[in-house]
Amino acid sequence: MNVLFTFRIKDEQMEKLKADFPGIQFCFNKKADEIAIDEFEIIVTYGEDITTDVLERATSLKWLMVASAGVEKMPLAEIAAKGIVISNVRGIHKTPMAETALAHILSLGRALPALVEQQKRKEWNTKVRQTELRGSTALILGPGAIGSEIGRLLQAFGVRTIGCNHSGNPAGFMDDTIRFDGLLSRLPEADIVISVLPSTEKTKGLLTEEHFKAMKETALFMNFGRGDLVKETVIVDALKNGDIGHAVLDVFEKEPLPVESELWTLSNVTISPHVSSHSGKYIERALEFFTENLEKWQNGDKDLVNLIDPEKGY
Amino acid sequence: MNVLFTFRIKDEQMEKLKADFPGIQFCFNKKADEIAIDEFEIIVTYGEDITTDVLERATSLKWLMVASAGVEKMPLAEIAAKGIVISNVRGIHKTPMAETALAHILSLGRALPALVEQQKRKEWNTKVRQTELRGSTALILGPGAIGSEIGRLLQAFGVRTIGCNHSGNPAGFMDDTIRFDGLLSRLPEADIVISVLPSTEKTKGLLTEEHFKAMKETALFMNFGRGDLVKETVIVDALKNGDIGHAVLDVFEKEPLPVESELWTLSNVTISPHVSSHSGKYIERALEFFTENLEKWQNGDKDLVNLIDPEKGY
Repeated sequence: MNVLFTFRIKDEQMEKLKADFPGIQFCFNKKADEIAIDEFEIIVTYGEDITTDVLERATSLKWLMVASAGVEKMPLAEIAAKGIVISNVRGIHKTPMAETALAHILSLGRALPALVEQQKRKEWNTKVRQTELRGSTALILGPGAIGSEIGRLLQAFGVRTIGCNHSGNPAGFMDDTIRFDGLLSRLPEADIVISVLPSTEKTKGLLTEEHFKAMKETALFMNFGRGDLVKETVIVDALKNGDIGHAVLDVFEKEPLPVESELWTLSNVTISPHVSSHSGKYIERALEFFTENLEKWQNGDKDLVNLIDPEKGY
Repeated sequence: MNVLFTFRIKDEQMEKLKADFPGIQFCFNKKADEIAIDEFEIIVTYGEDITTDVLERATSLKWLMVASAGVEKMPLAEIAAKGIVISNVRGIHKTPMAETALAHILSLGRALPALVEQQKRKEWNTKVRQTELRGSTALILGPGAIGSEIGRLLQAFGVRTIGCNHSGNPAGFMDDTIRFDGLLSRLPEADIVISVLPSTEKTKGLLTEEHFKAMKETALFMNFGRGDLVKETVIVDALKNGDIGHAVLDVFEKEPLPVESELWTLSNVTISPHVSSHSGKYIERALEFFTENLEKWQNGDKDLVNLIDPEKGY
């Protein structure tokens, strides 16, 4: 069985694969058009190199492993027509994103930005305002793989979690789950409001001035999902009026955030340049998904983790 | 039964106590010398107001609840002689201290200080160096109540924990426990080295140049215990030589840290002014210890939580 990687992985990662799967021939870091692609049963790719032309020539291909969370730009109809199995690394962002969310929450709670400023002035001042996370309540918009991982960690810190999704169906690591249309009445309970919602017709503009007025004046609002969840002017007004305490924003209506934006200079906002999912361990994590599936594939088990239905696209 | 609080608590906390314990008479916020102290079976105090004179006059006193972690300055011999039960709030610092430790670890891992600097320059730069905490290894010097709470949270993040104490006896939430004399050989495994050790004859100067040379060049060293664990010059040299990657220091050989100290200005050190245990919820937590015990006391159960042996002092 031959496996092609169309992207680069580290030497030790190559060696480990060869050692763990001695019966398999691996070819690493070759472009789809610089190799006899018809020899490969399995192709591991970031996705964008798999064109209809490549598919035509890849006559042995049975499984496409896409080391990316989205496959919407791939020729899914052709993949479906040829009966090629396709899987991805859905959920790969949950670890770095959940670590990012907790980093911001704890850093603000323990006043770390204030300590940095004091250090610059060589100032020993113990009167910094610090709070405890334990015993607080977080409302998580979008309790899917990422939202539930945030919920799991928050619960470990003794935080009560309320998930909010379209259906209101129970979600993992949420003490309670509510529907979008019940949001307004539950916002007053939340010390922290976190969105990891994608951009869909149902989520665009979901949060309005009314929602921010319903939050606690001390509330921390965080958006790691998509910038079109709420108009920038609504957030700016909420921060300037003191409707909420602080905002941590990783996503914006317009990215990069224009230099003219008032958000850059408000004292109660933290700007992050859409990096919440970044990680130095992306390939390591992707290989974990791959090797788990390769083990199955080798044993004739085609019920892979993170299979995609090419007709639905997810 | 009469209970005296010699310190101030919030109105709603007073109301809650009265509502939860209707059979008990509470007297709040009175000094021991401005009241008929002989009427009180229970005194809730920070400790420093309980002198031998007060003890002589408190003829009904059966239980001293000390809302502090240390009781070493109290007249313990007299308390023991009178058969007065004494309890404290040992462990009250574990929540804020563990939250502090995780705040620093995650904030550095997700490059939050770098993002703050970028925000000041209105700079949208996604090329910040961020790492994942999951899969790393932490070595915790002093895995007692606080160290174990740090271990519990680290394990929730998928971190392997190695505890290090004098005895080598297994400790809570440690994947492995080693003895002080085995430390040097295990330091090379640790991505994070955290001390919450108290100052004792065995811990003074425990860490030397040799230990820092044994750590990873990328290691994060954190001290939330006591400053005499290691000489300041040893830490400064390790940071300047690149023996370790970063240090977070909350305690120092001399406090406040003198303005002349080189530590203030090294780029790979975070200075915190001995505030890791501070919390806006101290009294709330202390009352949790108290009400749990008051419930027992009311039912005739004298096996209180956090009892102190006045002859040993802990």
